[in-house]
Amino acid sequence: MGMIHRFVDKGGEYEWEGVPAKRYETGDMKGGSKHVLLGPNEGCNNFRLRYFRIPAGGHSRLEEHAHEHGVYILHGRAQVRLGDEIAEVKPGDVVYIPGNEWHQFTPLGEEALGFLCIVPGHASD
Amino acid sequence: MGMIHRFVDKGGEYEWEGVPAKRYETGDMKGGSKHVLLGPNEGCNNFRLRYFRIPAGGHSRLEEHAHEHGVYILHGRAQVRLGDEIAEVKPGDVVYIPGNEWHQFTPLGEEALGFLCIVPGHASD
Repeated sequence: MGMIHRFVDKGGEYEWEGVPAKRYETGDMKGGSKHVLLGPNEGCNNFRLRYFRIPAGGHSRLEEHAHEHGVYILHGRAQVRLGDEIAEVKPGDVVYIPGNEWHQFTPLGEEALGFLCIVPGHASD
Repeated sequence: MGMIHRFVDKGGEYEWEGVPAKRYETGDMKGGSKHVLLGPNEGCNNFRLRYFRIPAGGHSRLEEHAHEHGVYILHGRAQVRLGDEIAEVKPGDVVYIPGNEWHQFTPLGEEALGFLCIVPGHASD
């Protein structure tokens, strides 16, 4: 059966009924979070949909791996590294990160960065 | 190389630089549109990310097919049919539609419905 994860906006803190927040931390950053919105728990095996929240002053992990990412910026502005390039993104922007490309998101300004991130179902994360 | 489709908000009409709007119509509805944000054109073959805009008074196609959908509501409220069930959704809600389940979105009120829709790369659409 189809299902709905209902959004709960707790004053800018995105939450969804029935979806636990997981800690998302890097070596030197605390306070990030990750929600797996669609994945094996929902019977969704061909792709996964996750939401990441990176606090102001933080950053996502600098990563490079075989699977690709599709990203949709929901809130906040960020600097994004794509390979050797640096760009800025804002809400509504769509980012494609192919496999085996270094990438990292760093919020700009005082607002937390929030984005949806899609990975293939075979990704380990 | 990674890439960015920059969002352009034309007063509620969502557009992205470099992404053409395609007409999305059903037998009795005009004025809908579809943007393929990530797919083969971007080298993204394991999943596709699309944006659909359904005008007030319209509806998406009543469909049933083998591939699943992941949906994230961006704007507007809607009634959604999931198999034999009817529910309401609002911005931020996440909907999972498994394969082989009848589904349809019908905007409620005066606002157009806009949503992101993810399908596996092997889906024909």
